[in-house]
Amino acid sequence: MESLILDTQLRHFLAEDLEHGDVTTDAIFGRETGLVQAIARQPLVACGMEQVAARVFCLLGGPVEFGELAPDGARIEAGRVVFTARGPAATLLKGERVALNLVQRLCGIATLTAEFVRRVEGLDTRIVDTRKTTPGLRMLEKYAVRCGGGSNHRFSLGDGVLIKDNHIAACGSLAEAVRRVRERVAHTLRIEVECDTLEQVREALAAGADIIMLDNMDLATLRKGVELIGTAAISEASGGITLDNVRAIAETGVDIISIGALTHSAPAVDIGLDWIS
Amino acid sequence: MESLILDTQLRHFLAEDLEHGDVTTDAIFGRETGLVQAIARQPLVACGMEQVAARVFCLLGGPVEFGELAPDGARIEAGRVVFTARGPAATLLKGERVALNLVQRLCGIATLTAEFVRRVEGLDTRIVDTRKTTPGLRMLEKYAVRCGGGSNHRFSLGDGVLIKDNHIAACGSLAEAVRRVRERVAHTLRIEVECDTLEQVREALAAGADIIMLDNMDLATLRKGVELIGTAAISEASGGITLDNVRAIAETGVDIISIGALTHSAPAVDIGLDWIS
Amino acid sequence: MESLILDTQLRHFLAEDLEHGDVTTDAIFGRETGLVQAIARQPLVACGMEQVAARVFCLLGGPVEFGELAPDGARIEAGRVVFTARGPAATLLKGERVALNLVQRLCGIATLTAEFVRRVEGLDTRIVDTRKTTPGLRMLEKYAVRCGGGSNHRFSLGDGVLIKDNHIAACGSLAEAVRRVRERVAHTLRIEVECDTLEQVREALAAGADIIMLDNMDLATLRKGVELIGTAAISEASGGITLDNVRAIAETGVDIISIGALTHSAPAVDIGLDWIS
Amino acid sequence: MESLILDTQLRHFLAEDLEHGDVTTDAIFGRETGLVQAIARQPLVACGMEQVAARVFCLLGGPVEFGELAPDGARIEAGRVVFTARGPAATLLKGERVALNLVQRLCGIATLTAEFVRRVEGLDTRIVDTRKTTPGLRMLEKYAVRCGGGSNHRFSLGDGVLIKDNHIAACGSLAEAVRRVRERVAHTLRIEVECDTLEQVREALAAGADIIMLDNMDLATLRKGVELIGTAAISEASGGITLDNVRAIAETGVDIISIGALTHSAPAVDIGLDWIS
Amino acid sequence: MESLILDTQLRHFLAEDLEHGDVTTDAIFGRETGLVQAIARQPLVACGMEQVAARVFCLLGGPVEFGELAPDGARIEAGRVVFTARGPAATLLKGERVALNLVQRLCGIATLTAEFVRRVEGLDTRIVDTRKTTPGLRMLEKYAVRCGGGSNHRFSLGDGVLIKDNHIAACGSLAEAVRRVRERVAHTLRIEVECDTLEQVREALAAGADIIMLDNMDLATLRKGVELIGTAAISEASGGITLDNVRAIAETGVDIISIGALTHSAPAVDIGLDWIS
Amino acid sequence: MESLILDTQLRHFLAEDLEHGDVTTDAIFGRETGLVQAIARQPLVACGMEQVAARVFCLLGGPVEFGELAPDGARIEAGRVVFTARGPAATLLKGERVALNLVQRLCGIATLTAEFVRRVEGLDTRIVDTRKTTPGLRMLEKYAVRCGGGSNHRFSLGDGVLIKDNHIAACGSLAEAVRRVRERVAHTLRIEVECDTLEQVREALAAGADIIMLDNMDLATLRKGVELIGTAAISEASGGITLDNVRAIAETGVDIISIGALTHSAPAVDIGLDWIS
Repeated sequence: MESLILDTQLRHFLAEDLEHGDVTTDAIFGRETGLVQAIARQPLVACGMEQVAARVFCLLGGPVEFGELAPDGARIEAGRVVFTARGPAATLLKGERVALNLVQRLCGIATLTAEFVRRVEGLDTRIVDTRKTTPGLRMLEKYAVRCGGGSNHRFSLGDGVLIKDNHIAACGSLAEAVRRVRERVAHTLRIEVECDTLEQVREALAAGADIIMLDNMDLATLRKGVELIGTAAISEASGGITLDNVRAIAETGVDIISIGALTHSAPAVDIGLDWIS
Repeated sequence: MESLILDTQLRHFLAEDLEHGDVTTDAIFGRETGLVQAIARQPLVACGMEQVAARVFCLLGGPVEFGELAPDGARIEAGRVVFTARGPAATLLKGERVALNLVQRLCGIATLTAEFVRRVEGLDTRIVDTRKTTPGLRMLEKYAVRCGGGSNHRFSLGDGVLIKDNHIAACGSLAEAVRRVRERVAHTLRIEVECDTLEQVREALAAGADIIMLDNMDLATLRKGVELIGTAAISEASGGITLDNVRAIAETGVDIISIGALTHSAPAVDIGLDWIS
Repeated sequence: MESLILDTQLRHFLAEDLEHGDVTTDAIFGRETGLVQAIARQPLVACGMEQVAARVFCLLGGPVEFGELAPDGARIEAGRVVFTARGPAATLLKGERVALNLVQRLCGIATLTAEFVRRVEGLDTRIVDTRKTTPGLRMLEKYAVRCGGGSNHRFSLGDGVLIKDNHIAACGSLAEAVRRVRERVAHTLRIEVECDTLEQVREALAAGADIIMLDNMDLATLRKGVELIGTAAISEASGGITLDNVRAIAETGVDIISIGALTHSAPAVDIGLDWIS
Repeated sequence: MESLILDTQLRHFLAEDLEHGDVTTDAIFGRETGLVQAIARQPLVACGMEQVAARVFCLLGGPVEFGELAPDGARIEAGRVVFTARGPAATLLKGERVALNLVQRLCGIATLTAEFVRRVEGLDTRIVDTRKTTPGLRMLEKYAVRCGGGSNHRFSLGDGVLIKDNHIAACGSLAEAVRRVRERVAHTLRIEVECDTLEQVREALAAGADIIMLDNMDLATLRKGVELIGTAAISEASGGITLDNVRAIAETGVDIISIGALTHSAPAVDIGLDWIS
Repeated sequence: MESLILDTQLRHFLAEDLEHGDVTTDAIFGRETGLVQAIARQPLVACGMEQVAARVFCLLGGPVEFGELAPDGARIEAGRVVFTARGPAATLLKGERVALNLVQRLCGIATLTAEFVRRVEGLDTRIVDTRKTTPGLRMLEKYAVRCGGGSNHRFSLGDGVLIKDNHIAACGSLAEAVRRVRERVAHTLRIEVECDTLEQVREALAAGADIIMLDNMDLATLRKGVELIGTAAISEASGGITLDNVRAIAETGVDIISIGALTHSAPAVDIGLDWIS
Repeated sequence: MESLILDTQLRHFLAEDLEHGDVTTDAIFGRETGLVQAIARQPLVACGMEQVAARVFCLLGGPVEFGELAPDGARIEAGRVVFTARGPAATLLKGERVALNLVQRLCGIATLTAEFVRRVEGLDTRIVDTRKTTPGLRMLEKYAVRCGGGSNHRFSLGDGVLIKDNHIAACGSLAEAVRRVRERVAHTLRIEVECDTLEQVREALAAGADIIMLDNMDLATLRKGVELIGTAAISEASGGITLDNVRAIAETGVDIISIGALTHSAPAVDIGLDWIS
C-alpha cells in the first residue's frame, strides 16, 4: 500500500470521528503524556500494526513512539502485545477507536485467510479474495488477505475480466462474449469466464478463455471440470466454500479458490488498548 | 440521512470499483436494457433499498426504474423480492456489486439489531449502538441500527461525552474529571461516566453524572448498580452483551443497553440479484 | 481544534488567495528573509496566534520561527506584540492577509465574548453562542467563543435538539413533538424546547423537556419563566441580548444566555503586521 | 458567479451544519410540505436571494418553488418579502440557517457598499473592495460589493499587482521594484504602487506605475497627490475611509476609493424566515 | 468512460479556467442565446464530441442543444462540422476553450492512432498505447487511442505487470523476478518481461513469461525474437516505432506494437468554433 | 509556483498511476536502495527538475537525496545529467513515469519558448503564451513558458479581459463592448480587444482599449496596425506565428507576440532515467 494513498483514507476516517474534536478529552487533558499497549485478546494473524494503527496516531500529531509492533502476517497468541505507543495522552485517546476499528477488522481478515490457507497446505491451490469487500476499504482488505497468505483476485471492474451469466445471456453466446472482450481489452489481462455447467466449460475452452470459474459446482462436477480444463486454462472454484470443504475442493486440483467470505464475513478479532501509565 | 451527504459517499464507493471503467461490460454491451430483481436469500430486516441501492444505480446514469422497494425496517422473508430495477444493462451490471455490498451489510445490521430489540420486547430498555463501526460507514451503519428498531449512542467524539477509566486515571479523580467536563462542554450534552464498580457508581452519582455506564458487570452487580442509580441518572449496561443474556440484563431495569456487536459483528445477509430479462 | 481538521481548512483559505501565486512578491523577491511583528492596534482578547496565524505561515513552507505568541484567551493591550515571525520574506508577505483576516475575526469574537462574560461576573450564568456563524468557519468561531470565556451551544443540526415553533406547529402539539424526539434521538443529548410564552414553558416542563429556551421575553416574563422552571430543567434566555441588558437578564437566575451576535456581529479587531527587518 | 463553482461552496456550507443530519427535524417530520417567507426586518440592498438562498434549498433536495425573489441590487424596505419558498417542510427547516447566515451577510455588504456609493453620487469616483474578505467567502463577498454598486479590486495575489512598503524596502528602491515587476508580470495587469508620501508618488510616476495608491493621507496631501498624478496614472485612495469622509475624499478627484470595511466590517442585516403554512 | 468519473474531471478543468468567473463575458452578456458550430480545420478522427465537448457546456448550466455530433472514431474531412451547440451565449463563450483544448488533443491522439492502425492493415498486429500519457488525462487519452482503432496497454502500475531491466538488476535474475511476481500478483494478470536481447527472450520463455516485450530491437533481431517466442507467449515490440517503420515491424509477425508517441507526441488537431448567430 | 498548490496536483497525478500500488515493484523489492540519473537525450532548456521531478519522489516517501539538479531555464546539452536521485529502489521505480511525463513536457515547452525568444533577440518584443494549455496543467505549463524566457498572458477567464469577435457581435458594437467592460471590471486589469482589420483597430483606439490584439494579419497590415496604435495602447500580434516568421513579425515593432503553440504543440523532450546502482 502506498502511504500517499493510505494517508488520504486514514485522514478521512479520523475526520469521521474527530471533525468536531473530542469534547471529553479536550475538557480533561492538557499536555500529559501516556503509554498504552495493544493486546491480542485472542489468537490472530497480525495486519496493519505499523502501516495503519501507528500511522493513525501519527496523523493526529504530537510525537508518538511505537514499540513491539507485530509484523504483518505474524501469528500472535492471545495475551501478546501487538504494539505499544507512548505520546500525548490526548492523541492516544483520540486515535484509539479509529485505529482499533481498522486493525481488528484487518486482523480478522488476515486470520480467516490464514486459516483457509492452512487447510490447503501442501496442495498447489491458491486462496483468493473477491470484490465482496467493504465499500471504501478494498485496498486495506485486499492487503489483509495477502497478509494472511492469500492472493488477490482483480481489484476493480477496470483491471480484470470476468464474463458472467448475465453478460453471456445479453450477448447471445459465450463464444461471442469472449470474442468481443478479446477484441477490446488489454492484452495484459487474462479473460475469465464463469461457468455453471461442464457444457459451458467446454464452450469456454473452445472460445479460448484463459481462466475458467467453476461456479457453485458439487465436488464431482468440479473434479470433472478441472480435468476438462487441464492446462488449457487456469481453473477457479467459487461459491459455497467453507473451512470444512475447502480442502476437498482443493484436492480436485483446482488452481484457485475464490472466497467472498474472506472479506464480507471475517469476524473482527478482539484487540484491547490498555493504559500502562 | 441527507441525500447531499450520502451521494458524496456513494460516488466515492462507486469510484473505488469503476474508476477505470468496467472492461468486461464495456466490451460486450451497447445500449441494451435489462430487468433485474434483488431477492432476499434469507429472512432479513430491510435497510437501504431506496436510499442506497436504488441511488447507486441512479448515480451511474441512464434512466432506471425501480419497483417493489422493501421499506426500511420491514421484515422480509427468504425468497421475497426486495427491489426490481429496469434500465440500461450496463448500468445494472456495473452497479450491482457496490449496491449489494452496501445493502447486505446494512440489512445485516438491521436484522441483528431487530433480533436484540425483539428479545427485550415489553421491557423499557433501549438497544443502542457504539462507535465500533466500519471506518467510513458510520452514518450508514447507525442508520441501519435505527431501521432495526435500535437507537444511536453518540455519533462521534465531538457530540457526546463519555468519561472512561483512562480519563479518570489521568485526571486523578472521577469527580474532578466530571467537574472539568461540565465546565467545558455544551449544556446540550449529557455527561456519561464509565463505571466498573459500584464504588465508582456512587462517586459518579455524587459528581452529578447524567448517564452512568455499568461496564462489564455481572448480573448481580448490574442489578445493584441500577438500584443505586434509580432516577438520579440514566443507566447504561455495556460489555459482553449477547442475544442470550440481553433479556436478563434488560430485566435489571437498566435504561440502555449498548452493543458494539450490532455494527462490528453483524453478519452480512445474503441478497442475490437475478437477471429477469 | 484538531490540527488535522484545521490544516485542511487553512490550506483551502490559502488557495483562495494564492492558487495562481503572488505575482508581485514572486517578481521582486528571491531568498531574502525577514522579521515581522504583529501588533494589537486596540485592546483585545487573543485567539489563534499559535494554532491559526503561525500555522498559516508554516503551511506556506520555508522554516519560520515564531516568538511572543499571545496565548489564547489573554487580554492584550493596544500596542502590544501578539506574535513575531522570522522566515523567508516571500512566505511572510504571502501569508499575511490570510493570517490577519482570520485572527482579526477570531480575536473580535473572543473580545466581544469576554466583554459579555465580564458583565455577568459573579453570577452563575453561562454565555453561549448559536449556529449564527460564518459559513465555513464554525469550528474556528466556536473556538474563539471559548477563548473569550464563553461556552458553545450545539455545533450543528446533528448534535443537539432544539424544538422550535415551526416544529411544534407542524406536529400539532409541543408534547407530541417532545415525545417523537425523545423516542428517536440519542440518550446522550438533552432535549431543548423554544418557548415564547409562560404557557409554553409549562407545557414543556410537563412534557419533560431538559432545556427550556425562553425566547425574546421581557425581563418580568423571563423572571417568571426561570422561577417556573426551577431545577426541573436548564433555563436558557435568547433573543435581543445586548451588553446593556445582559446583566439584568443574568440576574433573573437564568442558567444560560445564548447570543447570536457573538459570532454574527462581533467587529473584527485591528491587528497590524509591521516589517522589522 | 459560475453555478458550478458556487454549488461546490454551498454543498460545503450545508455539510458543516448537516453532516450528521438534523436530529430534531428528522424525528418530528415525515413528508409534510410547508410555505415560508423571508422578510427584510430592516431596509437593505438585496444580494443572493436567487443564486444563494434559493439554491441552498434546492441542493437539499425535494422540489421547492420560490416566489417574490428580490433581484440582486434592489433596495428593499423593512417589512418586505425577499423570497418565498414552498416545499418539503424538512428541507425548509434544514436549509434555513445556512441560507440566512449567507444572505444576511451578503446583503449587509451590498447595503453598506450602496451607502458608500450613494455618498459619492454625481462624482466620478469608483468605490472598490479589498482582499480583507472572510476566508472562504471571497467570491461571494466580492459579488455582494458589485450588487451594492461598487467594483472589485484584484481577486487574489495572483491576478493583480500591488507593490507595498515591504516590497520596496526589501528591494532597495521603488523604481527597481517596479522594474522587476514589469519585467515579470503579464502585460494584461496594471502595476499599482502604494505610496505614503508625495515624494513616493513622484517616484512612482517616474517609474511608470499604472495605478498609484495614496495610502492614509490627509485630505490636503491627498488632493496634491491627485494633482501630481493627473492623467498619468489611475489614483486610488485607501485607509481610514468612512461614510463621513468618503465624499470629501472623492471630491479631491481621486479615481478609486478602496475600502476594507465593505467586507470586513459590514454588519449583517436582519432577515427573518416566517412559517406561513 | 463512466460519466460519474468523467464529470469530476471536467468540473476540475472548468474550475481551472472559471474559478473567478469570466470577467469579459459577464460584463457584456445578459441572457442572449447563440448558435455555434465546431468545424474540423483539418482531416481528423473524431473523439469526445458528445461525451467531452458537449458535456463541458452542459456542466456550465443553461439548456444547451447539440447537433451533428461526430461519432467517436468517425473519419472527418477538413471543413466538416463536428458539432453544433445552441444555448446561452455566455455558456458557449465560457466553455469554448476548455472544450476545444480537450477535443483537439483527443482527436489528435485518435487521428495519429488511426494512421498507425491503417499502416498495419491486413496484418494481425495490434497497436497499443503506453503509460506515457499526460498526467491527469490518462483515462481520456486511452479512450482516444481506442477511438482511433488502437488498444490499451495497462492503465496503471496497479493493473499490469511489466518487469524491466531495473527490476531484474535489483533482483539478481530474470527468472527470480518472474518467480516473485508470479507468487504475488493476481492470477488475472499476465506477466510481461522487457527483453533487450534474444538471450533474455530465451530466459523469459524459460521462466514462463506470458508477454515478452522486444525492446528497441532492430528488425532482424525482432524477427528472431518473434520466432523464438512462437505461441509460447504474446510478443510485443516497443521503442523507436514510427509511421515509417511500423509496417515492417508488424510484418515480423509480432502480436503487439506499443507506441508512447500515440499519447506523448500526437499533435493537437485544429478545430475552430464559429459563431453562427 | 506555491508548493502548497503544486503538491496537491502532484499527489493527484501520482494517484492516477499508483492508486492500486505497483504490483510489479511490490512483488520484487524489499528495502533495497538505488541510484538513478536522469539524462537529457537531446538539447533542452530545463524546467521543473527540483520543484516537480524531485518533489514527485519525495511525496512517495522514503528519504531521497538529489544531486546535479539542472536549474530552471538552464540550457542543457544532449547527454548531460539533469538530476540524480538516491533512495529506496521502490520509490525510484514507482515515481519514474510520473516525474518524466511531467518534466519531458515542461522542458519541451521551455525549450520551444526559448527558441522563439532567441529568434527575436535584440528586439523589444515579448513572447507570451495563451490559454491553449493542457487541461489541469495550466499552472505548470505557464511556469515552463517563463523558464523558457517567455511571459504569460492572462491565467484564466477571471483575471484578464479579452473582447473577441463574438463578444462584439453579440453586443452590437466594439465601442459598446469596451464601455460595458470598463464599467464592470477591476481597474487593475487592462482591457484588450481582438481586431481583425485596421478599421477595428481604429475603433478600438477610439474606444480606449489598453491592449489591441492584431489577429491573423499579414505583415503589411500588421505593420500599419502597429503604427496606428503607436503608444496609445499595447500592441499584440497573434495567429499563425511560427519560428520562421516570428522575427519578421517582431520587426514590425509589435510589443507582444502571443503563441498558442508554445503550450499546445511543444514536442516533449526525451529524458531517460538510467539505473546506476
